[in-house]
Amino acid sequence: MEDRFVEMALLYDFYGKILTAKQQEIIELYYMKNFSLGEIGELLKTSRQAVYDNLKRAEKQLNSIEDRLGLVCRYQREEKQWSQTIKRLDNVIMALDREYSNHEMVKELQDIREFIGSITGG
Amino acid sequence: MEDRFVEMALLYDFYGKILTAKQQEIIELYYMKNFSLGEIGELLKTSRQAVYDNLKRAEKQLNSIEDRLGLVCRYQREEKQWSQTIKRLDNVIMALDREYSNHEMVKELQDIREFIGSITGG
Repeated sequence: MEDRFVEMALLYDFYGKILTAKQQEIIELYYMKNFSLGEIGELLKTSRQAVYDNLKRAEKQLNSIEDRLGLVCRYQREEKQWSQTIKRLDNVIMALDREYSNHEMVKELQDIREFIGSITGG
Repeated sequence: MEDRFVEMALLYDFYGKILTAKQQEIIELYYMKNFSLGEIGELLKTSRQAVYDNLKRAEKQLNSIEDRLGLVCRYQREEKQWSQTIKRLDNVIMALDREYSNHEMVKELQDIREFIGSITGG
C-alpha cells in the first residue's frame, strides 16, 4: 500500500469522527475501498470536482488536528517499540519452551504475548 | 484526587492542544496546580467570572471532542487490561526467578515488563 494511504488510514482511525458523515464516506470510498474520484462522484450523484474538494478539505482537517495533538505520531513511535518488545518476548517464550515444554509459564507468556499483539497490532 | 480531576487531566493530556494558550493555562492552574478561580483571576489580571467562563468553555470543548473520538475511553479500557497483564507478567517473572535465579531470561522479562510499564503507566 502507498505510504499516503497508510498514513490516511491511521489519521482516519484516530480522528475520522470529527469529519461530517459525507466526508467520512468519501474518505472510506477513496482510501479504504480504492474508488476513483469519478466513481465516487457517480455514486454520490455529485461532480468529480466536488468530491475532490471535499476530500481535500477532509484531509486538511485530519492533518491539522494531528499537527496539534500528535496522537498518530505517538502511536507510530510506540508501535516500533512494541514490535521489538514482541520479538523479544517471542524469543523468551521459545527459549523457555525448549527447557520447559508445555509448562504453565510458557502458556501464560504465550497468552500475554497474544494480548499485547491484539492491542498493539503486532 | 477527585474523579473529575483525574478525568480532566486525561482529557487535557489527549486533547489539550486544541485549546487556546489562555485556556491551557487556566486548565493547568485549576486542575493541575489546584489554584482557585479567584487566584487565577488575580494571576491573569481578569475577573473570577471570566476565568470561570473560559474554564467551562475549555471543559466543554474537551468533552465534546472526546464524545466524538473516544480516545480517552479507549485508553482507559486498555489501561485496565494492561494492569492485569503486568500483574500476570510479574507472577511469571517471580516464578521463573525462583527456578532460574539471575537467569538471562528473567532479566529479559524484567526489561520487557519495565518497557510495558513505562508505556502504559503500569
